Amino acid sequence: MNARVGLVAGSGQLPLLFARAMRRESESRLVAIVAHEGESDPALAACADHLLWVKLGQFERILSFLREHGARDLVLVGGIRKSTIWRARPDRLALGMVFKRLVGGMDDDRLLRAVAAELEERGFCLRSVTDFMPELLAPRGVLSRREPSEAEWADIRHGWRAAKGLGALDIGQGVVVRRGMVVAAEAMEGTDAMLARAGGLLDARGWGWSGEGSAVFVKVVKPMQDRRLDLPTIGPGTLESMIKAGIRVAAVEAGGAMIVDPEATRSVADRHGLVLIGIDAADVVEVTGGG
Amino acid sequence: MNARVGLVAGSGQLPLLFARAMRRESESRLVAIVAHEGESDPALAACADHLLWVKLGQFERILSFLREHGARDLVLVGGIRKSTIWRARPDRLALGMVFKRLVGGMDDDRLLRAVAAELEERGFCLRSVTDFMPELLAPRGVLSRREPSEAEWADIRHGWRAAKGLGALDIGQGVVVRRGMVVAAEAMEGTDAMLARAGGLLDARGWGWSGEGSAVFVKVVKPMQDRRLDLPTIGPGTLESMIKAGIRVAAVEAGGAMIVDPEATRSVADRHGLVLIGIDAADVVEVTGGG
Repeated sequence: MNARVGLVAGSGQLPLLFARAMRRESESRLVAIVAHEGESDPALAACADHLLWVKLGQFERILSFLREHGARDLVLVGGIRKSTIWRARPDRLALGMVFKRLVGGMDDDRLLRAVAAELEERGFCLRSVTDFMPELLAPRGVLSRREPSEAEWADIRHGWRAAKGLGALDIGQGVVVRRGMVVAAEAMEGTDAMLARAGGLLDARGWGWSGEGSAVFVKVVKPMQDRRLDLPTIGPGTLESMIKAGIRVAAVEAGGAMIVDPEATRSVADRHGLVLIGIDAADVVEVTGGG
Repeated sequence: MNARVGLVAGSGQLPLLFARAMRRESESRLVAIVAHEGESDPALAACADHLLWVKLGQFERILSFLREHGARDLVLVGGIRKSTIWRARPDRLALGMVFKRLVGGMDDDRLLRAVAAELEERGFCLRSVTDFMPELLAPRGVLSRREPSEAEWADIRHGWRAAKGLGALDIGQGVVVRRGMVVAAEAMEGTDAMLARAGGLLDARGWGWSGEGSAVFVKVVKPMQDRRLDLPTIGPGTLESMIKAGIRVAAVEAGGAMIVDPEATRSVADRHGLVLIGIDAADVVEVTGGG
């Protein structure tokens, strides 16, 4: 764990949280940051001595910059979001990689794995942000003050199975469930869009919060996912989207999903009476005779 | 096939097409029509001697009306759409059914199967509209003038597997695929909303129609589906939604999906250069070494 670290940063809060945490630990550990134009937070500049701004797909510039500053362990965070990856300006190296590795198709998991394989072939060691900040991984158990009702538990279990199945099909990581039905399944639109759509469908049916509980949002790791890349992530912003949509339970995979800024996330949950819970396969085993 | 037939009609074109076809064949075969307020086409009144308007869920009225007029075979068409079923005014009988049969959850397949089981317990015989009009079932093969490109074929195969997987999870029947990726997966929002969403996502990525082909819409029967109930259906309106979304291939399950008004549907396809194709599991077997 003592190699010098390079950060390839995309959008969102997480790169900055990571860079600041690294900086707090040691002034010299994080040696170089690659930031993406129009995506990454300019505040990253204060977190490393060397920062390079690039467009998505400028592999050659990225690699020579990281090598120049002696980075060996690499952390890729936020930079490989589904919604931005296709606005790339791929250079010769990036194009070569795409042709060499992605003959079978371009789903985003394959693309991420291809990027990882190329980096490792070039002597870099790809690391998960959670190797450095294990406190970001959702723990198992109820994290909010409110606990799920029985009806919510039933929907959490149903949602786990549906989301794992969706992941096995390489479609997505998240679903919204109410009364045993999958209201919305996430593919390329992203979590916020999926939550908003579910909110409209719940409204139209009068399926809002009731005595028995609320619709449930479940987010899990795809069964074949490389956990160093693109872990499912929720944070205060996700909870704000849920509140707008009238969804009051978030169940994420314990040890698999990241909670960005856990403190702030819990605080939003408790302020609005949401359930925030980390679950794993053991929670989904049905009690004999139960629903 | 000579029993007297009752039609329980929902929304859409299909109930009227069915009723008119029955009427053409014999003046006396279709003995009674139940139409749903705000959903069914008033033109149904001309197609049977006895017509009853009800709200969704008025089971007692429906059953006594059908018995009174001697209907034994029942065809349920259009009346059990996802988007309307929850606006029901369930009577005592309907509520009893829901409590008795749906303890485990309320997904729409289970609800439909419960309705079917109740009707059969009361001596009615539930029939598929395609028993009477087999010409509505999509045949296998290319139905449009344009044939799929190689890239489109690859996406059709990927879409078949994804949609069958989605169905096995009881989430939905349809997906949109482009370049080996599932762009959108249909749950409760319905096909038109899913196509519109996919259109926006394709646009944002510059993934419109190109030399190599277009995004592909695939719709299949759920593996466990009772084929007398709620078969996947496409028609001219579906193709209009596809055109708006820039999706130019529709692949539906041969022998499983219905094409409402096949003549008009083909004509829309050919006028806009769409592919319309019926596929089955044999089309999805990969050629060795192929993509």
